[in-house]
Amino acid sequence: MLAFDHTDAEADIIADHLIDCELRGLSFGGLPRALSVIDRLRDTSTPRRPITVLKESPVSASLDGGDQVGYLVGLRATEMAIEKARSTGLAVVGASKTWYTGMFSYYLERVTQAGFAGMIAGSGGQKVAPHGGTEGRFSTNPIAFGFPSDGAPVIWDIGTAGVMLGEVVLKERLGQELDEGLAFGPDGQPTRDPAAALKGAFTVWGGHKGSGLAMVVQLLGMLAGQAAAPLSLRDCGFFMIVVDPALLGDAADFQARVAAYADSLRATRPLDPARPVRVPFERSSAERERRLAANAIEVPDLVYEGLREAAGATQAQPGVEA
Amino acid sequence: MLAFDHTDAEADIIADHLIDCELRGLSFGGLPRALSVIDRLRDTSTPRRPITVLKESPVSASLDGGDQVGYLVGLRATEMAIEKARSTGLAVVGASKTWYTGMFSYYLERVTQAGFAGMIAGSGGQKVAPHGGTEGRFSTNPIAFGFPSDGAPVIWDIGTAGVMLGEVVLKERLGQELDEGLAFGPDGQPTRDPAAALKGAFTVWGGHKGSGLAMVVQLLGMLAGQAAAPLSLRDCGFFMIVVDPALLGDAADFQARVAAYADSLRATRPLDPARPVRVPFERSSAERERRLAANAIEVPDLVYEGLREAAGATQAQPGVEA
Repeated sequence: MLAFDHTDAEADIIADHLIDCELRGLSFGGLPRALSVIDRLRDTSTPRRPITVLKESPVSASLDGGDQVGYLVGLRATEMAIEKARSTGLAVVGASKTWYTGMFSYYLERVTQAGFAGMIAGSGGQKVAPHGGTEGRFSTNPIAFGFPSDGAPVIWDIGTAGVMLGEVVLKERLGQELDEGLAFGPDGQPTRDPAAALKGAFTVWGGHKGSGLAMVVQLLGMLAGQAAAPLSLRDCGFFMIVVDPALLGDAADFQARVAAYADSLRATRPLDPARPVRVPFERSSAERERRLAANAIEVPDLVYEGLREAAGATQAQPGVEA
Repeated sequence: MLAFDHTDAEADIIADHLIDCELRGLSFGGLPRALSVIDRLRDTSTPRRPITVLKESPVSASLDGGDQVGYLVGLRATEMAIEKARSTGLAVVGASKTWYTGMFSYYLERVTQAGFAGMIAGSGGQKVAPHGGTEGRFSTNPIAFGFPSDGAPVIWDIGTAGVMLGEVVLKERLGQELDEGLAFGPDGQPTRDPAAALKGAFTVWGGHKGSGLAMVVQLLGMLAGQAAAPLSLRDCGFFMIVVDPALLGDAADFQARVAAYADSLRATRPLDPARPVRVPFERSSAERERRLAANAIEVPDLVYEGLREAAGATQAQPGVEA
């Protein structure tokens, strides 16, 4: 990651995000994603510019991501939001002109470590059809909320599409069909062919209600500065709100109540005694503990070789000043 | 509504909310709900107190709802959030000790009329089971977002339960069975019997992902001041954030982009040509136009008689000083 004119500090931020995904067992966002990032960095048609602050107030900042990878822009947004919330208790930060904003739980863990609650929404190019439609109007549009707690933070992080882009690409490579109901071809007809789906649109998660949530995320991305109809994959919107619980009550008491509530969720009488009710974030957090204790992650050979190749290729490539 | 010691202004607020629901065709939240409100007001075991501000900053307020009906508390919260956002661009308001907070789109229409975007989440007593569980841990937990636009505002407003309390109560009265998969009895077994469902728990909407969203709403309600395990139906949490789009960019440009995006949603190639893609709020807004033009709403005889009876009863009841 040192290539493509990233500083050591920038490379560390990107690597930390990717490795955290691997540790948490979310390998889709981990090292395989590094290969896609490198592909994107090789396309120099939109050169990187420094991240700039377009507008700022004591409670807000609007960032131009400078066509930088989202791990850098997302972390900068998070740090600004936390800093502002430390002084005013409340902050909103928007960013646009960025891509691959990563796992929102990564940023929200920082927010909860600062003792704050937060929300992040991320929009992008139009690839997912609204309920009742067959053309893309949303991106896979993740949305996430995080809450600080006496125990582990509670962080909920979902995508609003019925299928992930990476899943469809993988099925195409493996020559497999998609499940029913996940995509439309460019002709607007339902399809199970991944190639047709990639030229057409994916379905949204959650029917009518889920479609509304995906729309909300797209509108929050527009509030963050994204265009109404982004044509480029580089034009993501990143919207973040951070709240200090002390604004509305006693912060320590809130963290205790969150922990007690998480316990009560886990203790819910289960439908199947073998499958207790889970609290979001706890499984991936436990996975991280386990892998850190083992001091090992498993990486598929194909990804490992790809990264070795990319490392060779990028080291050979002269740095270009942004 | 003048009875139970409400002032003229308070009665107007309650009536305006209920009538707006009727005009928009959301009759579940309209005049039939007035009967439930009256029932609740008759129970004087928790007397109404004035709404008080527990904590306040330039960007926030925390309200004790004084066990007042939510239409009053929600509007007060909305007015405070709008006023603060006018000066700082951003506001968070939480309220607790209130009940029946009404249709969140009602408050968000005010927010969008002021040119702001907003989010509201509302929690309550534990009646809905998390995914994989058979005991209540959420209320029916509505969540809503609103965005100002050059055209009609875009307001999305959903409940996160698989079924509404009112629907279950109605089925019980009519002696009808619930659909499959909507409820558990007090024994934790799936049931189609509304009476058993009312003693047990309802299922959550949207499976695993929807269950997470319902949890988020419950935690936002706790952030607003609700207890971790509210036992009383009167202990709802109401959480609201208002953002001035001018904080992050050009406000007029944002409203134009929202309108253009809503148009592009409507113009999405539909799966069924007879069923165009809808934008949230537009249907109920059109219903309101139609009923206002006709200058009439239809109210079931049973509700009409109930309201006449209640009016007689409450007029006969002497006012009690709070």
